[in-house]
Order: sequence, then structure tokens, then C-alpha cells
Amino acid sequence: MPALTTYRTQVLKDWVDYNGHLRDAYYLLIFSYATDALMARIGLDADSRGQSGHSLFTLEAHIHYLHEVKLGREVWVQTQIVGFDKKRLLVYHTLHREGTDQALAASEQMLLHVDLAGPKSAPFSACSAQALEALVDAQDERSAVEWRSRPLSLA
Amino acid sequence: MPALTTYRTQVLKDWVDYNGHLRDAYYLLIFSYATDALMARIGLDADSRGQSGHSLFTLEAHIHYLHEVKLGREVWVQTQIVGFDKKRLLVYHTLHREGTDQALAASEQMLLHVDLAGPKSAPFSACSAQALEALVDAQDERSAVEWRSRPLSLA
Repeated sequence: MPALTTYRTQVLKDWVDYNGHLRDAYYLLIFSYATDALMARIGLDADSRGQSGHSLFTLEAHIHYLHEVKLGREVWVQTQIVGFDKKRLLVYHTLHREGTDQALAASEQMLLHVDLAGPKSAPFSACSAQALEALVDAQDERSAVEWRSRPLSLA
Repeated sequence: MPALTTYRTQVLKDWVDYNGHLRDAYYLLIFSYATDALMARIGLDADSRGQSGHSLFTLEAHIHYLHEVKLGREVWVQTQIVGFDKKRLLVYHTLHREGTDQALAASEQMLLHVDLAGPKSAPFSACSAQALEALVDAQDERSAVEWRSRPLSLA
């Protein structure tokens, strides 16, 4: 099975800097929309959220900026489930465009499953856990996290 | 000298999710504007950019999400220079609001000084290096990076 494509968009005018390049924060916005799309695949989309009252909150994110990308360019996000436990999900998003095999950016993100009634952390439902397990089973390689999160240092 | 406040804003309508809370990517946008303001302090602002032809590109960012913040709330960014070398600058941004001593988010970011004519990496000018040194000298404590970047793991 090919890598899971979770989100596709053009680089919008509001997202670029004075040079016409995607601003750093908007790479993360595209990954944020990709996480929304992933939520829809595990029963936590906007429709079901009203019923389930649960969502994913981002705890930490690490992003590597690898290549610039210009206004109007079509880009897409591939998402890998690095792992999950009772309440947490670790994902790896990469951003891509036509014409190159190299990722434009890569981000590891730790997400927390939250009961919005608190809000407080809560275990995944059996339905969500099953959906996550199915995504993991369908992945090509679990070793494909090339750009790992790491401590930042000038050394 | 108190911590360097680089940027202040209200949480805008375009930045919040369906719950009225600041979306994860927009914490980083606020930090991105703080970096712009820091650039202005070291001779790399929009005006001088036309003359110097240099800017800062983000290489990597790590962000800890610590507390939610709602639409309309006034927030500000405090910025610490963790260090710099010939071409790179490591900064630590924290986001704050009135009514709590706790940071809302914290981000370490590695920035690269770039000659836009390439674009290619380039040494800081003597002027920018002096301005950075002055900021470092004026800082209270260099040990105040509480939320360090680190590898993400479910272990």
C-alpha cells in the first residue's frame, strides 16, 4: 500500500512571505489540517465530534524545514503512524510536491486524546483504536521516519 | 533587565478552532512574527532587508503546547537568545498572557542567516553580530530554557 495521503492543497496567498515563499508557521498549518483529516479516519471528525465529545490535542511538535515552496504550488501531506498507546498518538507528517522525491518538510507530533467535557485526557475508544491499528497494519514500513525529532544545539 | 518582549497581539478570529481556542499552527505564527521583530532588532528588518539582501530562515522548530488560550485574549512573546555562531541563531520563544505565570507554549528554533541573492547561507554582518551580543549581555539568565527540544517517544 502506498503512503497514506491525508491532505492536499495549493499554497495560498495568505500563507506566503514577502518573497512569495510559504512562511514557516503555515507548513505547520498544513500539517494541522492533515491531522484533522486523520481524525476523520479514526472516528473523531467534526461530525462525530459532536457525538463522541472527543478530540486530539497537540502536546509537542518538531518540524524540519527542508525546502522552500512557492505561492500556488500544489502540495500534499503523507502521514505515518509512528505508534500509539492508550491515550497518545505519535505521527510523522511529510510535505511533498510534484517534480521532486525530496520532502519539503517533516514533522513528528505527539497528540493526546481528550474528552472535551473536561477537557481531560481519555483513552481511545475501541473503534478509534481499531482504526489506528488498521492504519498501522496497512503501512509500508514503520522505519521510514527519516527526520527524527532531536534536541537542538549549536554544538 | 526583564525578559525581552518581542511581539504582542490579540488571539484573532482566523486563528481559533471550532472550540474558540488558538489552533496549534497559530502559536507558531505568533512566534514567527516574534522572530520578524527580533530580526528588526539586529538590522534584518523589512526596511534594511532591501539594502542588506539578507534574512533568517527557520531550519528546525520544536514546540511544547502547555495551555489553551481563547479568542480575543491578549498574549505576548518573550524571546531568549540561547546562542549564535557564524551563521546560525538558536532562540527560545515563550508565549504568555495576563493572570498566570505559566507559559502557554514554548519553542526552541534554529535559524539560519541567508543571503537572498543565492539564496545561500552567509555569515552575520558585524553589525548583526554586535546586536546579538548586546541582546545576550542584557539577558537575565541564560539557563532559563525550561522546555527543551528533545526526541519524541511513546516510551
